Amino acid sequence: MSDSNAQLIERRNRLLGRHVSTFYDDPLHLVRGDGVWLWDAQGRQYLDCYNNVAHVGHCNPRVVEAIHQQASTLNTHTRYLHEGILNYIERLTATMDASLTSAILTCTGSEANDIALRMAEAVTGHRGIIATDATYHGNTALVSHLSRSNIPEVGFGLEHFFRYVPAPDSFRIEDVSGEAFADHVAERIDELNKSEHGFAALLICPLFLNEGFPAQTEGWLKPAADVVRKSGGLLICDEVQSGFGRVGSHFWAHQKQGVIPDIMVLGKPMANGHPVGATVTSEDTINTFRKKFRYFNTFGGNPVSCAAALAVLDELQEEQLTQHAKTVGDYAQLRLNSLKKKFPFIGDVRGSGLVFGAEFVNRPNDTASDKTPAVEFTDRVVNVMREKGVILSKLGRHKNTLKIRPPMPFSLDNTNQLFDTLDEVLSEHANEIIKA
Amino acid sequence: MSDSNAQLIERRNRLLGRHVSTFYDDPLHLVRGDGVWLWDAQGRQYLDCYNNVAHVGHCNPRVVEAIHQQASTLNTHTRYLHEGILNYIERLTATMDASLTSAILTCTGSEANDIALRMAEAVTGHRGIIATDATYHGNTALVSHLSRSNIPEVGFGLEHFFRYVPAPDSFRIEDVSGEAFADHVAERIDELNKSEHGFAALLICPLFLNEGFPAQTEGWLKPAADVVRKSGGLLICDEVQSGFGRVGSHFWAHQKQGVIPDIMVLGKPMANGHPVGATVTSEDTINTFRKKFRYFNTFGGNPVSCAAALAVLDELQEEQLTQHAKTVGDYAQLRLNSLKKKFPFIGDVRGSGLVFGAEFVNRPNDTASDKTPAVEFTDRVVNVMREKGVILSKLGRHKNTLKIRPPMPFSLDNTNQLFDTLDEVLSEHANEIIKA
Repeated sequence: MSDSNAQLIERRNRLLGRHVSTFYDDPLHLVRGDGVWLWDAQGRQYLDCYNNVAHVGHCNPRVVEAIHQQASTLNTHTRYLHEGILNYIERLTATMDASLTSAILTCTGSEANDIALRMAEAVTGHRGIIATDATYHGNTALVSHLSRSNIPEVGFGLEHFFRYVPAPDSFRIEDVSGEAFADHVAERIDELNKSEHGFAALLICPLFLNEGFPAQTEGWLKPAADVVRKSGGLLICDEVQSGFGRVGSHFWAHQKQGVIPDIMVLGKPMANGHPVGATVTSEDTINTFRKKFRYFNTFGGNPVSCAAALAVLDELQEEQLTQHAKTVGDYAQLRLNSLKKKFPFIGDVRGSGLVFGAEFVNRPNDTASDKTPAVEFTDRVVNVMREKGVILSKLGRHKNTLKIRPPMPFSLDNTNQLFDTLDEVLSEHANEIIKA
Repeated sequence: MSDSNAQLIERRNRLLGRHVSTFYDDPLHLVRGDGVWLWDAQGRQYLDCYNNVAHVGHCNPRVVEAIHQQASTLNTHTRYLHEGILNYIERLTATMDASLTSAILTCTGSEANDIALRMAEAVTGHRGIIATDATYHGNTALVSHLSRSNIPEVGFGLEHFFRYVPAPDSFRIEDVSGEAFADHVAERIDELNKSEHGFAALLICPLFLNEGFPAQTEGWLKPAADVVRKSGGLLICDEVQSGFGRVGSHFWAHQKQGVIPDIMVLGKPMANGHPVGATVTSEDTINTFRKKFRYFNTFGGNPVSCAAALAVLDELQEEQLTQHAKTVGDYAQLRLNSLKKKFPFIGDVRGSGLVFGAEFVNRPNDTASDKTPAVEFTDRVVNVMREKGVILSKLGRHKNTLKIRPPMPFSLDNTNQLFDTLDEVLSEHANEIIKA
């Protein structure tokens, strides 16, 4: 690690506290971004295959200009009338089912999930929540208990409201059907109905992105959604990561899964990094919630945030980035499958649109592989890729799946650079997997 | 109400839900801001005596330029190294006691209070929280229970963690001493110690702004802080509204009150409307918290947010706005006291720096007043002032206190315009108070 990085980390420990994670063994000190490119303090250029927040590209000129123009004109809150928030919610909900008409704008996905859980409480009168056991949905005291990938040791003892179903895993679990998942959900609903909490909602990322984006047939979530509705609960889809065209085939991942959520939660890419989140639902649900809780968020839905979010929608639609994500994502699958043929320690390749990755597994001998996660090797690959100027990460229950989730303008050329580099790295380090 | 406003409200009801409050009987449709001025859609100009979020003035050029410059350069998260967040926290904590060294940056004051409560839980091992019975501290499921001015009907039943002390009221309560307040706190601590929760923290705005910013002697909070510390709890000061020089005599309101908080919570004015909040504390407390909760906030502390927040600090310091708030605030008190002599229905005038207001009370006959809050009259005054181009509001337990809290560049000329208009309105409507 360079002296200057060591100094920055010393300052971080003092000013931000210890235990604040950074990416990579040698953390990146970034100073500039443009499209799919990032530069570090030494002027080194990186291909960004990871950052989904800069959804329409780092420093996208349309978004920057929208922020600048509105910040120069007016920035207040929603107790005054302003057309920005209304125009945006109209445009946003136009991409969704007709039942999803209304929204509360927040500043983060965490805030939006915190509202979604209370909407479910307001509608059902119950408080029991179901999530998967290998995910993350945010950081408020309430919402943090949704996450089993990062179990909080503090949080006012709210864990008793939550139940967990096994995260879908199309590579390891025998019965990967939507029906099998629905059975797990039904079991947890029964448990909750026998508790004092009752059943309020199932909250999931419809792409199960943190869980490792398992391969699923179209309509996979329908059985679970049916179970939820039959039990009087709500289906909450956290589309913070999976939404805004990323999956390529659809604008929202739940559309691919054949369901319509009662509540949708949005965040990260929504305004390209400007702090914006949203809870979207029906008029009935929003009114039921607002009657029981006079929610107001000083910054939520301010004119600058709405201008930034609208510019992202404009860019996605005018540049046809959903279709682009499909084209590039399909090509990425081809390249991944070629690598899988070449490297037997690639146990599985998966993805949809501009979310894709490969799962690394042990290779007990020269010809065979098993399904044991090659955790250290995956970490090594991620770090060597960074050294070679390609930024990506890892995820899934075992942290042995490459997490590739680039900004949406990621091109076919970028895809070739990514996989040419990966091919090189895997070739150079293939011997390490055998030892793993 | 104009046709266009009626249309906007119809769209709001549909898109945001009903029960979303607006200011004024005839809501303002704002389209432009500059310094202490706002303009509506008809081109009408208003003197802004209310908006504390636009702390260094609407569309402050230094802040707008900082946002534009950084948004054009790089916007990522804190898992990469970046100097912006470190430089900002160094500059921010340099304005505080040496024990306050470290911070978690969030996007809202609500998120920051949600962290503060969990920090108290992490440090004390207890969960019992004390607040006043006439305040507001934010909107997450946990934090919303701090607020008695807006009691949530949903929120996962977390109310059992909270106890409330009577809000200080220097106009109505007989014993207004800090010792009397400390006695109330001690009673609630005893209650909590007898409960399963134990005592974790007292969380207050050190100016008690929502409560009606009661007049208090310097060092007023010391007895309460002593009781809190003796009981092993933490003092959390929510300086979202009271901080960043607003009180004029000090940069932070707790400094005026003679105490040093264990945790400070910041928000609203911090980046002039850009969504930024913070939880500031000691290295020990931040490390204890982070060890028990691996907090990460995607947008929190991003380079654009830090650039905006730093520009606010620069502007405050270079323009000496704290001293300016004192000068203008002292003059405002003079004008308020003149009005009090002229209008016997002004029961009390209070304030500190650029937070000030007058409390309206009934006037049973021509010469005497009593302490009965003149609630409808206050509302009427607020609405007539808006019609005359001056924006302010009302607050306090009885909502009979004018809430005047302008952007910090508010000048002596602005102050004269405000009070000349108020004098005119009170003269024209004085007869209404007698009927009240």
